[in-house]
Amino acid sequence: MIKDILDKKRLGNSLTKKELEFIFMGYLKGIVESCQMSSLLMAICIHGLSRREVFDLTDIFIKSGEVLDFSDLSGIKVDKHSTGGIGDKTTLVVAPVVASLGIPVIKMSGRGLGYTGGTIDKLESIKGFRTDLSNQEIHDAVSKIGIVITGQTADLVPLDRAIYALRDITGTTSSIPLIAISIMSKKIAGGADKILLDVKYGKGALISTIDDAKSLGDLMVEIGEKYGREVRYVMTDMNTPLGSCVGNSIELVEAVDVLRGVSKGALYDLCVELASHMVSMAKKISVSSAEKLVIEVLHNDEAYKKFVQLVKNQGGDINSATVSLDKFEVFSKKSGVIKGIDALEIGKLSLCLGAGRLTQDDIIDHSVGIFIEKNVGERVDIGDLLMTLYINRKNKFKVKDTIFDIQ
Amino acid sequence: MIKDILDKKRLGNSLTKKELEFIFMGYLKGIVESCQMSSLLMAICIHGLSRREVFDLTDIFIKSGEVLDFSDLSGIKVDKHSTGGIGDKTTLVVAPVVASLGIPVIKMSGRGLGYTGGTIDKLESIKGFRTDLSNQEIHDAVSKIGIVITGQTADLVPLDRAIYALRDITGTTSSIPLIAISIMSKKIAGGADKILLDVKYGKGALISTIDDAKSLGDLMVEIGEKYGREVRYVMTDMNTPLGSCVGNSIELVEAVDVLRGVSKGALYDLCVELASHMVSMAKKISVSSAEKLVIEVLHNDEAYKKFVQLVKNQGGDINSATVSLDKFEVFSKKSGVIKGIDALEIGKLSLCLGAGRLTQDDIIDHSVGIFIEKNVGERVDIGDLLMTLYINRKNKFKVKDTIFDIQ
Repeated sequence: MIKDILDKKRLGNSLTKKELEFIFMGYLKGIVESCQMSSLLMAICIHGLSRREVFDLTDIFIKSGEVLDFSDLSGIKVDKHSTGGIGDKTTLVVAPVVASLGIPVIKMSGRGLGYTGGTIDKLESIKGFRTDLSNQEIHDAVSKIGIVITGQTADLVPLDRAIYALRDITGTTSSIPLIAISIMSKKIAGGADKILLDVKYGKGALISTIDDAKSLGDLMVEIGEKYGREVRYVMTDMNTPLGSCVGNSIELVEAVDVLRGVSKGALYDLCVELASHMVSMAKKISVSSAEKLVIEVLHNDEAYKKFVQLVKNQGGDINSATVSLDKFEVFSKKSGVIKGIDALEIGKLSLCLGAGRLTQDDIIDHSVGIFIEKNVGERVDIGDLLMTLYINRKNKFKVKDTIFDIQ
Repeated sequence: MIKDILDKKRLGNSLTKKELEFIFMGYLKGIVESCQMSSLLMAICIHGLSRREVFDLTDIFIKSGEVLDFSDLSGIKVDKHSTGGIGDKTTLVVAPVVASLGIPVIKMSGRGLGYTGGTIDKLESIKGFRTDLSNQEIHDAVSKIGIVITGQTADLVPLDRAIYALRDITGTTSSIPLIAISIMSKKIAGGADKILLDVKYGKGALISTIDDAKSLGDLMVEIGEKYGREVRYVMTDMNTPLGSCVGNSIELVEAVDVLRGVSKGALYDLCVELASHMVSMAKKISVSSAEKLVIEVLHNDEAYKKFVQLVKNQGGDINSATVSLDKFEVFSKKSGVIKGIDALEIGKLSLCLGAGRLTQDDIIDHSVGIFIEKNVGERVDIGDLLMTLYINRKNKFKVKDTIFDIQ
């Protein structure tokens, strides 16, 4: 049976729902070996999955664990998800913005792995902030203050957790259908009514091209339709890092600046765009009408107040996040205009500084990070400060000259 | 590094020799995990390998263990290999035939796995016959009587053993380059000067079509050329079983009948063809001249005498092989002409009877097997005896009506 399934997919044929269930759930139960599962995952990466297989497999993923239901809470629950990028701290801004407009936000986030950071890690820069809420606590938080940001519960799509860990080490992460199934199964099982997706493409992302980003976005919209969930997506360039800060506490500080209307630029713009779509979906109004509301709460302190409420409700002390005092400054060796900042290299550097983890079990240093002093389009001279690294002397790192493309 | 290699092959690109060495030897050493290796094997199955990659990987396989050298023994050492078929006992005939003509034969054979039997298992039907000779014993046997048939030593291409076991369970057996590398690395490391290959195709074989059989044969000839070994191949249809017997001791009996010139038919014809090619290569004479010599020794008892000598030299008692006395007869339910006998189903039946093993550790029953009473092209009536099964009452089996295609 296992051999027949592997043969079928090796030849590029479609598997029946029964076959998909047998092999995927068999893997979760330990009947199918990891070497057999990875052989199948590679065949899927190369040959793809039919639409019917994608829908069947999403269903199998969702049913592998518990499905949350918040239908007793009033209001349309919205969720957002980013496919992951260097310096992406939009959730920290967007979730409070949307919630401050009376829309319930239940956001289950992940930890960082490899070059990209995770919202949960960034929030844990705040002393006391709890990210392991139970289903009841999630429910209570939303009903009390209309917002919760927490880690995924262990019972939510356990099959995704198992498969993701295997994909990560077997070179099978960059499959559009597998990415779509992984994201959408969690979003649907998480109980949101409407979902906004931020599909990243470029050097610092899982997906390289805008065409692939579009295919992924379209596929996720289709999956959402099958489950009666409105799904929208935006596509964002991830060739350069998002914003000026990369790390954990340092990204939190940047997010707070945006929430208070202090910081502008690419990060602010993307946060406004994402929040506007979420508000537009939840309130069933146009994006431009929604945008006015979003900009308003970003400037009248309402969004920031909601963030403070969120932190307090989950046990955090808002003034506790600290950035390392130990600095390392990187100066330009060239003069010219900055044509690009390599997001992937920034991600790798941040990992070396101690801000990320290579395996799930690594411990991260919340206080380290990178502040990008000069951005794309700016002119620099020899000796100008390009980046400030906030470091921990225990970690070894090397700064590549090619991070900044100066011409 | 591992991830980069997997990505490269997933996209269908060629790997450098250094990369191939890193990942394959890394697997043998336990640095690369089996799930990573199987992911790569599946990508290789789908995308294939370039000629350069095949040559590089063959070299890595060969160098993973010891390389035997029999150059101090006089004469051109010839070897044969079959890609495996149901009822294939040609080695038991061909090796003594060739040796009886004064050509040294060093034959390292395998055990059966799955539906196909193995020469070593068939020889072990003979009480006392040793198949675990050391390199010194192999050397002594060839120098003394000019023939040895033994199991592969553990040090010969250990990488192949490791990879083969993984391919077997991950649906990655049917890759032409991987089959070619597996066979040729063992033949070259085994020390033969000239190699004859019997490439099987059809229902009971790893390869389905004659075109694929030709690709495989051509590739193995090319690999041989790289190492200065003359390689020839013949292609044989494996849709119907070879000869009338399938099992272990029962196949040995059939082989002896051919060796004594008693049995004719497809098996006899193939043995003559294979032996003629080997003699032609070793003696550098035409195939038709070689054929005359081969037919002669099959009828003047010289070939059989060599077989007796072989058995004695390796500690066996020629009269000890026994076929089970417990019989089960299968009669025809139709009348008509036999258009085909399903080799794969015969193989599966033989496995159920206890003649084969599903895993390397299974213990087989040498005395059970199948005697095919009526062959393709023969007319049968309802109630005619089609097969006699020699059984062990402990094993459960079911005979499918579709094994014989009677029309």
